[in-house]
Amino acid sequence: MPRQRLGTDHLSSQAAILDIIRAAGTISRVELTQQSSFSAPTVSTVVRRLIDEGLVVEVGHGESTGGKRPTLLQLNPAARFAIGVHLDHGGITSVLSDLAGTIVARWKRPGIGSQEPPEVVERIAADIRDNLARVAVDPERVIGVGVVAPGPIFQHTRMTLTSPFMERWTDFPLASALEDAIGLPVLLDNDATAAALGEYWAGAIDVRSTFAALYMGSGLGAGIVLDGTVLRGSSSNAGEAGHICLDVDGPRCWCGARGCVEVLGGPQRVVDAARAAGLELTGADVLQDFAEIARAAGRGDAVAVEVLRDSARYVAACAQTLANVLDLDLVVLTGPAFALAGSLYLPVVQQHLDAMFFARESHSVEVLISSNAPEAAAIGACSLVLQSELSPRRPGLRAVADVTPVAAG
Amino acid sequence: MPRQRLGTDHLSSQAAILDIIRAAGTISRVELTQQSSFSAPTVSTVVRRLIDEGLVVEVGHGESTGGKRPTLLQLNPAARFAIGVHLDHGGITSVLSDLAGTIVARWKRPGIGSQEPPEVVERIAADIRDNLARVAVDPERVIGVGVVAPGPIFQHTRMTLTSPFMERWTDFPLASALEDAIGLPVLLDNDATAAALGEYWAGAIDVRSTFAALYMGSGLGAGIVLDGTVLRGSSSNAGEAGHICLDVDGPRCWCGARGCVEVLGGPQRVVDAARAAGLELTGADVLQDFAEIARAAGRGDAVAVEVLRDSARYVAACAQTLANVLDLDLVVLTGPAFALAGSLYLPVVQQHLDAMFFARESHSVEVLISSNAPEAAAIGACSLVLQSELSPRRPGLRAVADVTPVAAG
Repeated sequence: MPRQRLGTDHLSSQAAILDIIRAAGTISRVELTQQSSFSAPTVSTVVRRLIDEGLVVEVGHGESTGGKRPTLLQLNPAARFAIGVHLDHGGITSVLSDLAGTIVARWKRPGIGSQEPPEVVERIAADIRDNLARVAVDPERVIGVGVVAPGPIFQHTRMTLTSPFMERWTDFPLASALEDAIGLPVLLDNDATAAALGEYWAGAIDVRSTFAALYMGSGLGAGIVLDGTVLRGSSSNAGEAGHICLDVDGPRCWCGARGCVEVLGGPQRVVDAARAAGLELTGADVLQDFAEIARAAGRGDAVAVEVLRDSARYVAACAQTLANVLDLDLVVLTGPAFALAGSLYLPVVQQHLDAMFFARESHSVEVLISSNAPEAAAIGACSLVLQSELSPRRPGLRAVADVTPVAAG
Repeated sequence: MPRQRLGTDHLSSQAAILDIIRAAGTISRVELTQQSSFSAPTVSTVVRRLIDEGLVVEVGHGESTGGKRPTLLQLNPAARFAIGVHLDHGGITSVLSDLAGTIVARWKRPGIGSQEPPEVVERIAADIRDNLARVAVDPERVIGVGVVAPGPIFQHTRMTLTSPFMERWTDFPLASALEDAIGLPVLLDNDATAAALGEYWAGAIDVRSTFAALYMGSGLGAGIVLDGTVLRGSSSNAGEAGHICLDVDGPRCWCGARGCVEVLGGPQRVVDAARAAGLELTGADVLQDFAEIARAAGRGDAVAVEVLRDSARYVAACAQTLANVLDLDLVVLTGPAFALAGSLYLPVVQQHLDAMFFARESHSVEVLISSNAPEAAAIGACSLVLQSELSPRRPGLRAVADVTPVAAG
């Protein structure tokens, strides 16, 4: 059977045409008609609407192909902006992007730590206001704010079964609280899913790839993209790679299961093992401790190298399971923990997949470190908002939050 | 974010309309237009073509809704047939289905055993000819033959990395050999994928389900359906649930990896463990031995119950991993081994998922035993052929084989 495309067909004519213009840079109406599945009159009508809304501008003329020279169209990147916020225990990373996906501002603040959720929300809102003012972007031009966090997150008002790092956030109405504080629509999603979408949206990955972004921050998760479409599953909780079982009799995980990848080889396990082996760690949280271990490994510290190698074996087995279940082309290592220690993990994961991927006679699975690893989730959060603008199911600005009830872990 | 539909939009107008008629039983053109995304003139043109081709018939008139009474349309089930063949070590199961998916003949023959591939192919071809004659179906009305087997299968000419049960079949040009022998297009695919599609096609499962069919025959695999679309992955090798790692230091599997579900808890492991524990087994192959163990467990034999329970723990952890990665609604236990011992596996898997599925606060994962477990793969093979007829990418009869280069394991 030929490969089935897993639905990108859901985009409306306006969204599809906007996306073609974005990808093309400059393009004529004739070329637009050729590259889209729409008739010339439809393209003409939609382009007129996009120009009226200020999303697209005419930028001179192209070469004649016989008749009069065609008018070229271009996205107006400054017509709309989106904000992505990645909320984690160890840091809050935010980016502001224009309609073309270019990051025009970025800021990083202390993590949620032990602060109460309402205080954190006020802090995020104040930072957004300050940064919009700093780069002189009118809040009226901001489509919305994408907030991503480890999960799972259920509905857009509360989180449940929260990871140990975010226990205070259980049942806190994050989306509505932030909407009230900043006056913009807020969209909640899972950080690993966002990171995968960010990789894809940033154009670093072939549009037809079937890949997993393995995200390691305080915990471990995966964003999965199948043939260009994010896998969400039944309730947007797909990609829980940290809770793949690697030992049926293994230690109990905070999620209730036994022998999860996260409990056997996640960042907390790396920190615990290093400390148990005598390494002195002074970080304020698991990610800072992990960073100290990564630096020690870089200096050749045998204990640090050993605990990271041990973690890498579990991450490799996790990647093998994802590759065998999903028949992946590519695994991208992303998130702050892989930004710190990815060079140690990458060869272990690559060698494991080269030797053990089930369909290796058919094709190999490439392993890469993201070029945006520390900011991938925040960039992905932005792209979620930009995509929501492009999607016909979320036609208006204010509608973003209304139709975004669920996110993942 | 709202759930994204994973592409069923690829069906052509003809295929989509045929599928709506199939699902509806009888339907008027007006209702067809309402239920499809096509205009009334398109529906009218397509219906005319379907009637001309004999695929659809007019069957009287429905109730008037104001104007004249509408003509009702119905699929002509006898217009086309498809054959599904499930090739396994322990048995070759075949079914003949009409266009509506109704099984009109079924036959079961001895498995491939130690017979040479060309002899098996001749045997399959002879059985097909005999059975078509028996039920008086003209071979001209047969769209093609779907052949499914454990895999992986690469291209349509050869298999590589074949499971221990099918070593002789490595590099054997199965599809072309059978095409030559029977004079019909042949489509190759993975048995677990076919079983999932069969469950879905047979209408036993909600059209929007996200589910995995865990298939246990001589080995263990999964067919995965996401929102109504079969997951194939990058090279049609998705769903290799038997090669999910459950122990990074576990015993070596025939696939090259360590601690795979299949080696820890698959049928061969059940048989080996039972024999090691003193159970006398007299079967001719692993599935016959497994059947003896299942029967012994049914009689309350403690050893048999113990080895099956142990296997069920691994199958449950495998289901947990699939559910956490894919965010499943449903796991269907299918294939001959679950047909024999599913009632012992089901509660173990269900309890495990109830307690350990990561997003259990959001929704549960239901576990079912297929009502077609022994024949699921053969029925699925039929539905692959029927679907190929409905898909615009495979418009002609003879084209089925040409565009079906790959299958999975």
